[in-house]
Amino acid sequence: MVSSSESTSHELATRSSYPLHVVDEWWRAANYLTVGQIYLKTNPLLTAVLAPEHIKPRLLGHWGTSPALNLIYAHLNRIIVQREANVLYVAGPGHGGPAMVANAWLDGTYSELFPNVSQDAEGMAELFRQFSFPGGIPSHASPETPGSIHEGGELGYSLVHAYGAALDNPSLTVACVIGDGEAETGTLAASWHLNKFLNPQTDGVVLPILNLNGYKIANPAVLARIPEDELLALFRGYGYSPRIVSGGFDGEDPMAVHDALAAVLEQAFDDIQSIKRRARSGRSVGRPAWPMIILRTPKGWTGPRFVDGVPVEGTWRAHQVPLAEVRENPEHLALLEAWMHSYSPRELFDREGRPTPTLESIRPRGAKRMSAIPASNGGLLLRDLALPPIENRQVDVSARRGATSEATRVLGHWLADVVKANPDNFRIFGPDETASNRLDGVYEVTAKQWQGSFEPTDEHLDPEGKVIEILSENLVQGLLEGYLLSGRHGLMNSYEAFIHVVDSMFNQHAKWLESSAHVPWRRPVASFTYLLSSHVWRQDHNGFSHQDPGFLNHVVSKSAKVVRVYLPSDANSLLVTAEHCLATRDYVNVIVAGKQPAPTFLSLEEARIHGARGIGIWDWAGTERDGEDVHVVLAAAGDVPTLEAMAAVHLLRQNIPGLRVRFVNVVDLMRLQDPLEHPHGMPNNDFDAIFTTSKPVIFAFHGYPALVHQLAYRRTNHDNIHVRGFKEKGTTTTPFDMLMLNDLDRYRLAMDVIRHVPGLGERYAGLAQHFDDERARHRAFAYEHGIDSPDVLGWGWLDARPGETEEPTGDALDTGADAVLGA
Amino acid sequence: MVSSSESTSHELATRSSYPLHVVDEWWRAANYLTVGQIYLKTNPLLTAVLAPEHIKPRLLGHWGTSPALNLIYAHLNRIIVQREANVLYVAGPGHGGPAMVANAWLDGTYSELFPNVSQDAEGMAELFRQFSFPGGIPSHASPETPGSIHEGGELGYSLVHAYGAALDNPSLTVACVIGDGEAETGTLAASWHLNKFLNPQTDGVVLPILNLNGYKIANPAVLARIPEDELLALFRGYGYSPRIVSGGFDGEDPMAVHDALAAVLEQAFDDIQSIKRRARSGRSVGRPAWPMIILRTPKGWTGPRFVDGVPVEGTWRAHQVPLAEVRENPEHLALLEAWMHSYSPRELFDREGRPTPTLESIRPRGAKRMSAIPASNGGLLLRDLALPPIENRQVDVSARRGATSEATRVLGHWLADVVKANPDNFRIFGPDETASNRLDGVYEVTAKQWQGSFEPTDEHLDPEGKVIEILSENLVQGLLEGYLLSGRHGLMNSYEAFIHVVDSMFNQHAKWLESSAHVPWRRPVASFTYLLSSHVWRQDHNGFSHQDPGFLNHVVSKSAKVVRVYLPSDANSLLVTAEHCLATRDYVNVIVAGKQPAPTFLSLEEARIHGARGIGIWDWAGTERDGEDVHVVLAAAGDVPTLEAMAAVHLLRQNIPGLRVRFVNVVDLMRLQDPLEHPHGMPNNDFDAIFTTSKPVIFAFHGYPALVHQLAYRRTNHDNIHVRGFKEKGTTTTPFDMLMLNDLDRYRLAMDVIRHVPGLGERYAGLAQHFDDERARHRAFAYEHGIDSPDVLGWGWLDARPGETEEPTGDALDTGADAVLGA
Repeated sequence: MVSSSESTSHELATRSSYPLHVVDEWWRAANYLTVGQIYLKTNPLLTAVLAPEHIKPRLLGHWGTSPALNLIYAHLNRIIVQREANVLYVAGPGHGGPAMVANAWLDGTYSELFPNVSQDAEGMAELFRQFSFPGGIPSHASPETPGSIHEGGELGYSLVHAYGAALDNPSLTVACVIGDGEAETGTLAASWHLNKFLNPQTDGVVLPILNLNGYKIANPAVLARIPEDELLALFRGYGYSPRIVSGGFDGEDPMAVHDALAAVLEQAFDDIQSIKRRARSGRSVGRPAWPMIILRTPKGWTGPRFVDGVPVEGTWRAHQVPLAEVRENPEHLALLEAWMHSYSPRELFDREGRPTPTLESIRPRGAKRMSAIPASNGGLLLRDLALPPIENRQVDVSARRGATSEATRVLGHWLADVVKANPDNFRIFGPDETASNRLDGVYEVTAKQWQGSFEPTDEHLDPEGKVIEILSENLVQGLLEGYLLSGRHGLMNSYEAFIHVVDSMFNQHAKWLESSAHVPWRRPVASFTYLLSSHVWRQDHNGFSHQDPGFLNHVVSKSAKVVRVYLPSDANSLLVTAEHCLATRDYVNVIVAGKQPAPTFLSLEEARIHGARGIGIWDWAGTERDGEDVHVVLAAAGDVPTLEAMAAVHLLRQNIPGLRVRFVNVVDLMRLQDPLEHPHGMPNNDFDAIFTTSKPVIFAFHGYPALVHQLAYRRTNHDNIHVRGFKEKGTTTTPFDMLMLNDLDRYRLAMDVIRHVPGLGERYAGLAQHFDDERARHRAFAYEHGIDSPDVLGWGWLDARPGETEEPTGDALDTGADAVLGA
Repeated sequence: MVSSSESTSHELATRSSYPLHVVDEWWRAANYLTVGQIYLKTNPLLTAVLAPEHIKPRLLGHWGTSPALNLIYAHLNRIIVQREANVLYVAGPGHGGPAMVANAWLDGTYSELFPNVSQDAEGMAELFRQFSFPGGIPSHASPETPGSIHEGGELGYSLVHAYGAALDNPSLTVACVIGDGEAETGTLAASWHLNKFLNPQTDGVVLPILNLNGYKIANPAVLARIPEDELLALFRGYGYSPRIVSGGFDGEDPMAVHDALAAVLEQAFDDIQSIKRRARSGRSVGRPAWPMIILRTPKGWTGPRFVDGVPVEGTWRAHQVPLAEVRENPEHLALLEAWMHSYSPRELFDREGRPTPTLESIRPRGAKRMSAIPASNGGLLLRDLALPPIENRQVDVSARRGATSEATRVLGHWLADVVKANPDNFRIFGPDETASNRLDGVYEVTAKQWQGSFEPTDEHLDPEGKVIEILSENLVQGLLEGYLLSGRHGLMNSYEAFIHVVDSMFNQHAKWLESSAHVPWRRPVASFTYLLSSHVWRQDHNGFSHQDPGFLNHVVSKSAKVVRVYLPSDANSLLVTAEHCLATRDYVNVIVAGKQPAPTFLSLEEARIHGARGIGIWDWAGTERDGEDVHVVLAAAGDVPTLEAMAAVHLLRQNIPGLRVRFVNVVDLMRLQDPLEHPHGMPNNDFDAIFTTSKPVIFAFHGYPALVHQLAYRRTNHDNIHVRGFKEKGTTTTPFDMLMLNDLDRYRLAMDVIRHVPGLGERYAGLAQHFDDERARHRAFAYEHGIDSPDVLGWGWLDARPGETEEPTGDALDTGADAVLGA
């Protein structure tokens, strides 16, 4: 953005040569194109008298919100030309698709990106035909919509997307149009407070424009029906400087609205410039009261005022298709024709259907067009993330396996390296849990960005910083989405149980990525990576409500092209996984990792190999012998399940010396799935080689057992897979004994082995009983003392160094040597 | 509530005899009990000098929020006694568990409900021991907490629960304490606007008390760091009359805060009384500016001010356990002892550990105690819902099967009957979609409740009405939860795709119900019933973002004791399902039903039988013959899949006359699951009898195919089940052709039959090709004309009357008669 004092004479000339009647022309053209999309199959320029055969057989689309979206677009064009501003337009109201498409077509962008929709009569006909039509485009903004980083489907995320895009984009202004419907959603209501985080010096600006058209689908909107003093108080309370523009009601001349809106927009951009100038000059501006605009216009403005004797313009009846029976009802047909002619299309398009020279000459050029601004197609701007060596942060296990570390704390130190190496395009977001999730190593190099007031006791708070924390999973999710879609990198951390708060936002983002892959001009963006900690198995003082591993189930329901799930077993495995995920594009990566002190099993080198394979046999942890069939496969996915499964092997080795147990660890969960279903799916031969085709498999799983069955149900040996995972049990009031209540503990796993390996059950009934008694003893200990018994807490895998495969000792099972029970 | 003019001399006496030093005593007692829960294993009354062995081995819990929760409880007790008010206390801040438990113990309620936690020294010791202890209670409010309808786990739902409980409860005041952390969440930020719905005459009152203690886990809270003018403007903007009480900082005497808070609370209750009195007198009060209180106190007030040289009280360091090393560090131990003694326990408890006579005598009695108010254990108040006969609203199919109806529209008319029959304890909630989901028949008998301003064009809006609509799935979910948990009935309707917005709220409610079943004194409440419409298969102008059937997957991950899923095939089946669901207790019922015109297959009588079984063979729809094995089972779950599967049978019957197809319809999805997993699970023998043990099963499913496999993977014939359902395909830009893109269409199902029935594949290769060509033709038709071809649209099941089983015609397959291709 160029401040006014720097304006050249050219710009001033442009400014003076952009009269409001030209804005009105643009607006009429966009409105005409919007109506055309909803109604017309042919005859786009109304060169013939409108007849039923020109009309689409099914009328679908949303008129109500469109005229205001068009109005704002037209006015922002003027601002852009006048000020050489970089403006990203986020269209929040639902189903504003036809408006955004209309403006992109007027911009010329649409025809550049979709050559079959040329900027002439033929292209206009195709523009109209394809809208809400089989094989065409939907009635809401979508990845196919030029200039959009925002889907106008599920409502409420526009403002948070706008703030995410503005971060670290100091020359960008994000004009965010918010519908009065979506303003009722939780995420939007909370998003207003994001002005407490934006740094006026290093970030861009968000200009919220709340459009009060009065109605949702079938109801008045809350914010449209409160007195003006409450409305203004609300936005002052949110910390903005609100300005109201109201007009267009009861047939009021639009020029009055143009005058008012232009003045308010100019004032807003002047104020923004002035704040930015002061901030850039190094003078502290504290948290400025950024402008926001309340634009009150009739729903479906310029559409039919009355239809069949009832008011339509300015009511909820204008929400979708104001004239519903155009093919059948001559009166409706005549009303439509009059409506479209009211925009005077002959003044707007030439005979060939091209926008007139006036419209063509006054619009922004190239990347200044809101439909073509690179920030709306972030992959164009994406720079590779510099990834510092994870070697610097590895946990040393060269002395022995099992060195204690807190996995996420180790990761936090590496993330600090990443922040340092990528000072302007990498951010970490969290719902007040970044320190709780033990990623606070990042505060060695950066801070939590904050524009609220400061207290002497504050720590790691700064007006500029690469971590943003606010207690709303929705907000941090939306910020990261906006940040990624505008071409940057990042990571979100959260507690596992409450990540379901963003299930639907995840859905929408995953669907956006899936769809974007089919849009040739959309460039790949950095993946959305979740780090979920404080996970289901370690809820030290939290009850049943905090125990939920179901986000994994939710994630795998989405397109296999997009979703990736990782369950690293230890700190080194987590480092490898995070390094991989942050380098990927167009995925959603979910990593679940513990924060509590836990053994580190793999050297970094081993973790790299294991991570590349995604699944593998850990020779050193099992009791296999070369050339002999195993009796059982013990598999684990997740850090706590891995620990318990390894402890189970230990118990079995002590007590059934000849038992040949294969130990399998899964870090990339999607390896379990059929390769026809997921690109990471392991070929059946490989799967069979690891899991055998006939031996019992005891699977210790981080999540709900059904998920393993869902992923592996087509595998040869599936009927032999017995999964221990999390069960929904409301009696689990506190969690020390959760492993036991859920039967995912070393004793139960060992008992499962005895139960399922043919021949063991009877022979080792006494041992199984002993294990059950041990469980009861450990549980009783915890109930009495409030901590786990030292046997359980103190267990570690101390046997082998990395690289050494320990030779199992003892006789083979079939030699008949009986087990020695007890310790 | 008794208005002051009606006060008796007894009440005035009570008021004057409730001095603030008694409030302070209660507060100190509750604080003492809170600290005790966090730290002490034994020595509850500090009768011995505090020693490490008295301290729990692991210190878990949250002190920070507790003193303010206790303060408010103590003051509300005074209000209740003074005014004989009915107050429900909703504790929003996270992990306020020990405070709520402490007050319930002081009330006597805790010992009544949990006799092992008696109101004496022994009981106090148990109260302390069990907290955040294995086998004990969690550190947040939970179903085990007397007086709570709200879990202090996942944050943000307190205020919406409060509003839900207040609806239709005109004598209730819900005091809702909101933490400044949870205030940052989306749901809470949106909840403030619920004052636009509460009717001052027919509903109760919500008194929000926002506690600004300044910090979340590790960060300052946004609302605590904005200037006071913004804070007040914000709440005036939300439509409240805010009052601030601030104090307790830097060692300020609590009595000053007691004075101020008592005055503000009295004023608030006076204002509430005055508004209610005016409303009851019939004078219009419009939308009153209800009082709300902002209470600014230090986090962890009265706790240690400095520990190890750094400030704790009033900072985020007071969030959990302010003194972390009490067993190891004598200085910490001494600080704890001094801290606990600062409350002067000898003034609060007698030698036996009982609250002193002062504390005992001044507290509210019986059901007036906030820990015992019946609204917090809604099952106590629950009256059976009067269910008018669905017969009155059935679709008549006596002439022939297939009569066209819009299922949800039919339901809407019956819901009107339900509203009429239950004028004060049944409500319908929706996110602006009740009319869109075609339930607007209810507006024949009621309206949408609304306290905003009115316009002449408004329809079905009224200050009193049984439907509440606001564009936030979170708010409507939370309102219904609050309404149900306080003892009433209701239904929520929503679009299927966006119901994921409330995934996490559903989780929490399902977990609440699961846990409540283990709490003997919790009485069953009415089930939470979702009606999901505008479902995945009919998204006429909406794109990929609107297509998501995954809520079913999410729901089945929760406890089988709680969740029920129904996919009625038509309008009559929907009536039967809804009637059943509304009569149930303690479940979450999910019903998915279409709103578009569709055939009605079952008579009401048949639908009743089918609904009772949950799954069944439709003889009349298949081509089985008595005594002969079927060749294939064609199963369907969901309305669109049922229609397509029946059309597939029709195609097959026309073309392969001897083919014996069994037609199975599933309305209760959980019938598919193993009976060991779900109480509705069908016994294996029955399942085998329906699905055979060896024949191919082609399953047309409403949702993601993996869900059927997940539920049925243990069934004998599972390997032969081939599911067609929804696939994530981003190219599905518009939906007319969605069935075809997703391969859930009649032709594909018929082709599947040919492919999987042994012997058919080669013999009917030509027919399969013909079906494939037909698919292509129909798709091309839709792409060209924008509507489905008349063959597809016009198909109907017109063959048989209910009760008649049509005899299949044509030769048996094995007679060798060739099919006649084409029409």
